[in-house]
Amino acid sequence: MPLLVVGSVALDCVETPTDKRDDVLGGSAVFFSYAASFFSPVKMIGTVGEDWPQEHTTFLEKRGIDTSGIEMIKGGKTFRWRGRYLPNMNDRETLEVHLNVFGEFKPKLQTNHRDSKFVFLGNASPVTQLSVLDQVPDAKLTVADTMDLWINIQRDELEALLKRIDGLVLNDSEAKLLAEDENLVRAGHKVRAMGPKFVVIKKGEHGAMFFSEHEMYVLPAYPTPQVLDPTGAGDSFAGGMMGYLASKDRYDPQSLKEALAYGVVTASYTVEDFSLDRLAGIERADLDRRVAEYRQMLTF
Amino acid sequence: MPLLVVGSVALDCVETPTDKRDDVLGGSAVFFSYAASFFSPVKMIGTVGEDWPQEHTTFLEKRGIDTSGIEMIKGGKTFRWRGRYLPNMNDRETLEVHLNVFGEFKPKLQTNHRDSKFVFLGNASPVTQLSVLDQVPDAKLTVADTMDLWINIQRDELEALLKRIDGLVLNDSEAKLLAEDENLVRAGHKVRAMGPKFVVIKKGEHGAMFFSEHEMYVLPAYPTPQVLDPTGAGDSFAGGMMGYLASKDRYDPQSLKEALAYGVVTASYTVEDFSLDRLAGIERADLDRRVAEYRQMLTF
Repeated sequence: MPLLVVGSVALDCVETPTDKRDDVLGGSAVFFSYAASFFSPVKMIGTVGEDWPQEHTTFLEKRGIDTSGIEMIKGGKTFRWRGRYLPNMNDRETLEVHLNVFGEFKPKLQTNHRDSKFVFLGNASPVTQLSVLDQVPDAKLTVADTMDLWINIQRDELEALLKRIDGLVLNDSEAKLLAEDENLVRAGHKVRAMGPKFVVIKKGEHGAMFFSEHEMYVLPAYPTPQVLDPTGAGDSFAGGMMGYLASKDRYDPQSLKEALAYGVVTASYTVEDFSLDRLAGIERADLDRRVAEYRQMLTF
Repeated sequence: MPLLVVGSVALDCVETPTDKRDDVLGGSAVFFSYAASFFSPVKMIGTVGEDWPQEHTTFLEKRGIDTSGIEMIKGGKTFRWRGRYLPNMNDRETLEVHLNVFGEFKPKLQTNHRDSKFVFLGNASPVTQLSVLDQVPDAKLTVADTMDLWINIQRDELEALLKRIDGLVLNDSEAKLLAEDENLVRAGHKVRAMGPKFVVIKKGEHGAMFFSEHEMYVLPAYPTPQVLDPTGAGDSFAGGMMGYLASKDRYDPQSLKEALAYGVVTASYTVEDFSLDRLAGIERADLDRRVAEYRQMLTF
């Protein structure tokens, strides 16, 4: 079942305590798409500027990702992010953000994108996310990401979005902010009560929590000794999760839990190198093998 | 199989963002013993001052804990700790510490304590912990806790201890400090290579990690919506773990994993109220039921 993702396409500059990379491929839609492509066909909607290296598009298309929805804006520049990770490799500082063409991003879906059944609304303003939702009337599973910025400046629009989507994925500090509750268990339930059928709270190196009306659980991150660059881990998690669901064409509780496990494991590979370098070196069989290890790890 | 614990016995003053308690029952040996008592007979070694309320001893003995190893020092004062939790209820500031009689604690085990097979060396200086180890020649499982203070000022003695114990339990920041490595997976393996057969890293609200020569895994904390006071969670975790092992009289890999799950769940009750108030209101059956829920939560 094809999966549609709308989100940022970026060039990242990443500094870690021991290394750095300039202008590497990044952005929520990119990490999401690549992660999801292990499981399901993916269609990507985004925007880039004239500075966008064609080789990145080629790289994504070689992976079978439909990039026809990436619009190139003449005279524009691609979204750029520069960040630095602290020694714990979990916290980071944003040093520079240049939204560039992403600041004017108004996704207009082509006919071949509009009949998508599985849709992920990557981090963008709730207004933009709502406009995409209007363009996918046949979607059977819609999941969105959000961030603190929108919670702070577009809370009404975000609350309107929450009433229309099936699932919300957000990180722990964002969940606390949105729910106005410091306890993550209560925060997750409160956010779910705002509308979505399920909520997934991403806790970075500490895993993820799931909330639905009748279920709540937490799954740890897959522990890896090699963390070179956590950028894109959250989007890879969402991509692995949604890709797995699209591949099964289901989203019952058992499939959702398996999907979370695949998300955790996909993200565990992403952090093992910069950009998509690690994911580019693995196959679906590697993900299956690590999920089996992960399942064993949690069995007692 | 009886279980021996040596550690602090304290009167705690605890402040949280919404509540506070003065002079409540606390200390590593107290939390450990109470938690372990759901599973196994416990013998407790510690020291208190003349200010120690006899009712606390009565409370512990009613639970079947052997308190004959608690020495009361005439003219002395009991160890006191005052702390304040930050709004996230995971980080805390220590406002006051008065070691009092615990500063001169030189445990001398009576004959009926010396033949213990399961021994937990609660947080004390490595020198004190080594002296206890010398007094339990027949122990078949010895596990110790430690803290940043000893890593900083008695590293040589701590390293000597690590070569003589079976297991070490410590928290995440202590593991990073001891291993001089910010990655917890690598840190855990490095600490294990210092001597103990296994290492357990406590991550507070994020659960625990286990390391042995052939195994590494992480288990999340049991998510509870009610966190009133995290004091003693780590010692309750260790108590649940060691109590379970002593009750089975085994410490094979499968038993150790089950024991970690019981430790996680026991600690999840401790944080639901101040001091031992929540643990005092539950039974072994509650722990079994929550472990079953926890197992279900981790099954996919």
